[in-house]
Amino acid sequence: MLKISALKKLIHELSQLPGIGPKTAGRLAYFILKNKDYSKNLREALVQVENEVHDCPVCFSFTDNEAECDYCLDPMRSDDIICVVEDPANIERIDSSGVFKGRYHVLRGALSPLDGIGVEDLKIKELVHRIEKKDDMGEPLTKEIILALDADLEGDTTVLYLSKSLREMGFKVSRIAQGVPIGGDIDYIDERTMGRAMEYRVEL
Amino acid sequence: MLKISALKKLIHELSQLPGIGPKTAGRLAYFILKNKDYSKNLREALVQVENEVHDCPVCFSFTDNEAECDYCLDPMRSDDIICVVEDPANIERIDSSGVFKGRYHVLRGALSPLDGIGVEDLKIKELVHRIEKKDDMGEPLTKEIILALDADLEGDTTVLYLSKSLREMGFKVSRIAQGVPIGGDIDYIDERTMGRAMEYRVEL
Repeated sequence: MLKISALKKLIHELSQLPGIGPKTAGRLAYFILKNKDYSKNLREALVQVENEVHDCPVCFSFTDNEAECDYCLDPMRSDDIICVVEDPANIERIDSSGVFKGRYHVLRGALSPLDGIGVEDLKIKELVHRIEKKDDMGEPLTKEIILALDADLEGDTTVLYLSKSLREMGFKVSRIAQGVPIGGDIDYIDERTMGRAMEYRVEL
Repeated sequence: MLKISALKKLIHELSQLPGIGPKTAGRLAYFILKNKDYSKNLREALVQVENEVHDCPVCFSFTDNEAECDYCLDPMRSDDIICVVEDPANIERIDSSGVFKGRYHVLRGALSPLDGIGVEDLKIKELVHRIEKKDDMGEPLTKEIILALDADLEGDTTVLYLSKSLREMGFKVSRIAQGVPIGGDIDYIDERTMGRAMEYRVEL
């Protein structure tokens, strides 16, 4: 790396990005140095995102609408059922399957005591506040909650916490199924996935 | 991916970076969305690089000096010998070996007819202009040129072209040695490297 403080700073910033180590950051920085037009385009894209994109005040996904996002505004979606996800990007993945037509709620992460991420750091209070809403008849608007969290330790911890508290509040709570992926070859399935697939086998 | 045009634009820009595909770009964009302070820091780093870093007018490395870079200004370095590299980043790698104390010249790439990169696209004219300079006695300032280019097809092509033209101009031209890397296990050396190592064996 050349001894140029501006270059060092750029490499430092780039290496903050997830999955980008100092070596990759160096390669990216040299690419940017060689393409000053690109640098300007990237800055413009960053400014635009900073100015135009904000949190949806209902589901905490991202949106460039003035207030609520398209999913929260869509009159064709059912208010009965809320799908809880970790990140905004998960919404499109789930929605493209075409089987879910309810509302979404983004936790903005998952519980991870080791990383110091607790209940207060996630949009759990906001979820509880949201599902406590009642209609004109005094009946809760939300009937069912689907937890579509990652199948990792943090996801499991969050599912455990949420399912307990939401069931206590009287809601029907489910978690998306874990098992052999479609097209998956039994020979290549890891032990834990196979364990889950056996445990949650479906009677025919 | 959420249907937000600013987000799409940012993902598009990020996927222009070398080695960053659309999927990684999406992950980076979501990270940036969640960290608006980071976005500002990154923009500042980009502006600083755009404003402070420019090409060294002698060797075509990058520098934040007003004119020549530190390597070109250093009075302890010999003008007799010039090491030709592809990219500015190569200079530090070579210099940290501590065995070369001459000047550098950056081609800003290598000849690649398939990618449409020809002699005119590289700083070859500038290299020729530079080594044509004579001292007060009418003797050329540069005596020897070392080609430290990548050991790939583009590097080989460029070495072939440069060695012919520079030898015709009367300069001593060499290329850095290719062979088994230090610490390299013979069992893990690829065929082409082994071929070169045999071809260029050194008599003991």
